[in-house]
Amino acid sequence: MKKINVAVLGATGCVGREMLKVLAEREFPVGQLRLLASARSAGRRIEFRGREYTVEEADEASFAGMDLVLGAASNALAQRFAPAIVRAGAVFVDNSSAFRMRDDVPLVVPEINAEDVKKHSGIISNPNCSTIITLMAVAPIARLSPITKMIACTYQAVSGAGQGGLDALEGEVSALCAGKKAVPSQFPCQIAYNCIPQIGSRLENGFTTEEMKMQNEGRKILHLPELRVNCTCVRVPVMRSHSIAVTLYTEEPVGVEAAEAAIDAAPGCAMARGLDGRDYPTPLDTSDQDTVFVGRVRRDLIDEERGLSLWCCGDQIRKGAATNAVQIAEAALKG
Amino acid sequence: MKKINVAVLGATGCVGREMLKVLAEREFPVGQLRLLASARSAGRRIEFRGREYTVEEADEASFAGMDLVLGAASNALAQRFAPAIVRAGAVFVDNSSAFRMRDDVPLVVPEINAEDVKKHSGIISNPNCSTIITLMAVAPIARLSPITKMIACTYQAVSGAGQGGLDALEGEVSALCAGKKAVPSQFPCQIAYNCIPQIGSRLENGFTTEEMKMQNEGRKILHLPELRVNCTCVRVPVMRSHSIAVTLYTEEPVGVEAAEAAIDAAPGCAMARGLDGRDYPTPLDTSDQDTVFVGRVRRDLIDEERGLSLWCCGDQIRKGAATNAVQIAEAALKG
Repeated sequence: MKKINVAVLGATGCVGREMLKVLAEREFPVGQLRLLASARSAGRRIEFRGREYTVEEADEASFAGMDLVLGAASNALAQRFAPAIVRAGAVFVDNSSAFRMRDDVPLVVPEINAEDVKKHSGIISNPNCSTIITLMAVAPIARLSPITKMIACTYQAVSGAGQGGLDALEGEVSALCAGKKAVPSQFPCQIAYNCIPQIGSRLENGFTTEEMKMQNEGRKILHLPELRVNCTCVRVPVMRSHSIAVTLYTEEPVGVEAAEAAIDAAPGCAMARGLDGRDYPTPLDTSDQDTVFVGRVRRDLIDEERGLSLWCCGDQIRKGAATNAVQIAEAALKG
Repeated sequence: MKKINVAVLGATGCVGREMLKVLAEREFPVGQLRLLASARSAGRRIEFRGREYTVEEADEASFAGMDLVLGAASNALAQRFAPAIVRAGAVFVDNSSAFRMRDDVPLVVPEINAEDVKKHSGIISNPNCSTIITLMAVAPIARLSPITKMIACTYQAVSGAGQGGLDALEGEVSALCAGKKAVPSQFPCQIAYNCIPQIGSRLENGFTTEEMKMQNEGRKILHLPELRVNCTCVRVPVMRSHSIAVTLYTEEPVGVEAAEAAIDAAPGCAMARGLDGRDYPTPLDTSDQDTVFVGRVRRDLIDEERGLSLWCCGDQIRKGAATNAVQIAEAALKG
């Protein structure tokens, strides 16, 4: 297979480092590799497949000769560098939310809407992490009958906020273990032994930016423009893997067994089984892997005809970010 | 006020000890005090208002001369001793789930259905902790217009499982802080840095016993026999205070401002405000107090006419158990 020159923008963060791991694991045909970050991280050395690379400060000239840029940086940086990346002729697979809702930018979960990849004009967006994990669990049901409404409550790991989130929880717990006070850093208040029902910023309708992604991105990925999603996003003291409790309503009734069979048959997701006798997943069961696990599928008590409830967990740094981005790149550069 | 002879059944557990604290705080007119527990705990000494009491092993003769028995024991013990308590002429305010759904047993949250207290025949049940906290937040809205349907996802603290739950989380975190492995004790798997979507045992409909309490007890307390509740109960690594994300539908539209005003006007609950600039509560904000705090009230995106979403937190050992039980006793023995 033809070698592909790859730049990782934001190579030193949680997602950027996981992208490198996934590129290696999946034997992505990396030709040249360029590790880009802010001036603060420039000069750091990172290993990839047995070779050391020096992190460079990203600028507009960094993308010359690249075929693929994996973006794991902020919206501001994605917006700043996108024109240069597109001019350089590279495909920009971007994990920020900057371009996700743009009509000329595909928003892709390869197991769900791989065909959208082809419609890009240089930029392909990687969806929000909770959205990817939820949709991986519900898309097999949506293929049996379109989903009309969905209520989702999330239990989101601190690493969704990057390395700073992990450091915050670890730091707080260490301080408390040592009999000291926990000093909040990354989150609006202490996250150790707590739950924080606000992720992203508050909009006029009372929902947060994070919560609205589930509806807006869900509509685009599932090709269901009328889908209505009511979401509550909550940060919990978990290191990795987001969990989501979902109740959904379909146009035509879908049975519990049919839903479970569809989940098992779909690539990238599976019903949880045999987890020390448990048939439901927890974040710890699902961390450091790509599969989204599902459990607790049951008939809704409110609409016993068309409602189903379920619980799903997946690693939001892997399938929720790095793995999904590399899968998009594979689909985009194939053929 | 007339002195009341009080026995606490299960006096050495999390809820039993909190009941003693609440009796003292509320200056309950305690006459004789009898602290009852299993043989294992008999002989332990517990202080109450500056005097030491010796814990006695509970048996059928323990209730003679008592006016009130506060039950903080298992269903099995509640069932075993209820006949002796009723025969002794005491009122049994029981925190177990053994009698909650019996027609001749009132199930009471005093701020919501205090009038039901009078209908007892010796036993009054204290509702499930998550149910109490959720209903404290939604009852003010139900008084504006009856609630028809509710979807609730819980974020339940480990102390909901008693002292063993607290010990489990503390033990696991200490072990992990010391670089050792966490060994699950109380819960089906590790709870430190994890979420466990199963509380209680699984029923044939796929819901758990804990989840069904929200509908069954909610119907009885709110006097809404047709209420439908779809609940997902999840244990999270929080010490105290349960949190619940609720979406509810009312018969007639209720506006966000009207709902917030009703919550603020109702006794025992309040909109969260001024929490270090936050207008939503977290479990840590609401522990060791009786008020149930509410935030994030917003118009549902699915049914913009009749749907509302909100987030509420309350200390499940206080208002969810001990305080509510003492309030029931006050209402039952008044006048």
